[in-house]
Amino acid sequence: MLVRAFIPAHITAFFFPRFHENPMKAGSFGAGVNLNRGTNVIVSIEEGMENHIHVAFNGKPVKRRAARISYGVAEEIIPEGFRGDVEVWQYFDFPNGHGFGNSAGGALGTALALAYSFKNRTLLQAAQVAHAHEVINGGGLGDVIAQLHGGIEMRIKAGAPGIGVVDSIFFDDYRVLAVPLGRLSTREILKGDVIEKIEFEGRRALDMLLNSPTPENMMRLARDFAEKTGLLDGELLEIARELDRVLRLPSSMVMLGRSIFALLRPDEVQSAVGVLDDLSIENYSICEIYNEKPKVGRWTG
Amino acid sequence: MLVRAFIPAHITAFFFPRFHENPMKAGSFGAGVNLNRGTNVIVSIEEGMENHIHVAFNGKPVKRRAARISYGVAEEIIPEGFRGDVEVWQYFDFPNGHGFGNSAGGALGTALALAYSFKNRTLLQAAQVAHAHEVINGGGLGDVIAQLHGGIEMRIKAGAPGIGVVDSIFFDDYRVLAVPLGRLSTREILKGDVIEKIEFEGRRALDMLLNSPTPENMMRLARDFAEKTGLLDGELLEIARELDRVLRLPSSMVMLGRSIFALLRPDEVQSAVGVLDDLSIENYSICEIYNEKPKVGRWTG
Repeated sequence: MLVRAFIPAHITAFFFPRFHENPMKAGSFGAGVNLNRGTNVIVSIEEGMENHIHVAFNGKPVKRRAARISYGVAEEIIPEGFRGDVEVWQYFDFPNGHGFGNSAGGALGTALALAYSFKNRTLLQAAQVAHAHEVINGGGLGDVIAQLHGGIEMRIKAGAPGIGVVDSIFFDDYRVLAVPLGRLSTREILKGDVIEKIEFEGRRALDMLLNSPTPENMMRLARDFAEKTGLLDGELLEIARELDRVLRLPSSMVMLGRSIFALLRPDEVQSAVGVLDDLSIENYSICEIYNEKPKVGRWTG
Repeated sequence: MLVRAFIPAHITAFFFPRFHENPMKAGSFGAGVNLNRGTNVIVSIEEGMENHIHVAFNGKPVKRRAARISYGVAEEIIPEGFRGDVEVWQYFDFPNGHGFGNSAGGALGTALALAYSFKNRTLLQAAQVAHAHEVINGGGLGDVIAQLHGGIEMRIKAGAPGIGVVDSIFFDDYRVLAVPLGRLSTREILKGDVIEKIEFEGRRALDMLLNSPTPENMMRLARDFAEKTGLLDGELLEIARELDRVLRLPSSMVMLGRSIFALLRPDEVQSAVGVLDDLSIENYSICEIYNEKPKVGRWTG
């Protein structure tokens, strides 16, 4: 049987972390947007004599040490009594490490597809397994719960799915420009000195967004957060400023990746693309906002 | 500007109430299913000199005393400084009072469409307004939060959206047969002697469903609940038994309406329709399970 799960890419606009020794209580506060591109996970299950789990990223098999989160999720959800082969094929629309939630997408997609197949977990139970392995392995804190909700989301209480609380902002006709430019280690940033600024600016941004919950306000607060924390600087800041010249709302930095994003009205797409062309940036996507729950179901190809 | 919201009809399979003087903490535990038919709310807003709110059900204007919940929701969400006419047109695919969540659908649709229009509330804030007016006016306890989540849902912690917790059960290829047969007053049943049985049987059913979270198990537990509480009897029980003769899973009673529902595999639709024809029951629907969030957006007709 083949089962497919689609998990949206998730861009964090601003955030502050909540560390906790209990992974169910660890998470993040903040806001972000889910995209109609992201991670597809296809799970194949065949009964047999021995147990094997295989994980592949974009068609290439990966060893356990390079995919601890996915192997951990699979081992926890596959029932003890099961004997056979489980293959987990993960396909990513965005490059890894650039801030689009691939790690959480792979973890959540694996969890949902396996729970759907074995019928042994609810949606929240499966998502909690994904969240816990993300947190324990330093993959991320808030992507899983954000991806589970879709849309333009606000994490107003940190924690695992079913414990944290996610709210949504209403939006109308926006596209999302996503420009992945380089990798950034979430883990190193969360350990560095910038964390105090992130705590202060992130909390302030969330309070202000709750006072006036609009996509426009989110983008202004995101850019403030990115500049005041000092995370957005150098080449990235220059690109953001070039985009600002032709867009109504400020662009900002993807938290956390060396990547830029912006909300575009349909009539702004052409000029945004023009700016990127002038900068010789070829790798970008114009996405829709994904305002649904993740999709899980039998896959017939 | 016209804004439309679609809210799925919601059938409760089994439940037990949580009464609380704070409407944010009142709600219900239980399980149920959301349908791809339900309530469409179209809101029209025109600025003017004076404030008027008009509510209409299925095209017919209704006075405040017949639509306290919708008027209450509208008054709370329309900003104080607004001057003009607000029309709230609610269209129901199922008859009122038959257990399909029309009251909550109207309240939630009104709240979401107005919050979308005025951009002054988040999704959860708007849904909490709908929940509070439902609870205060005895419209229902758990429909709003269930409709907000979609799919086959389990209310595992009672309360308003953002406070209560809703989980989901994975399902594959099922249709929902919905047979509305008559009205039933939720309020009177919740005040009657049957409430003790509902508490006991509802809690037991939810525990058992969490142990084995499948749609098949939900239907067996729903039928047990309906019979053991004594709510399913007489003509309704006879109809359920007739349907059982041709279906793999037990049918059950909609909580709370004089209505029957069943999960059908595609190959069971014809025989279920045959049974209803034999019983001369003409008013029924074969629906899809609605596994999305409510839809809200500008309406262009």
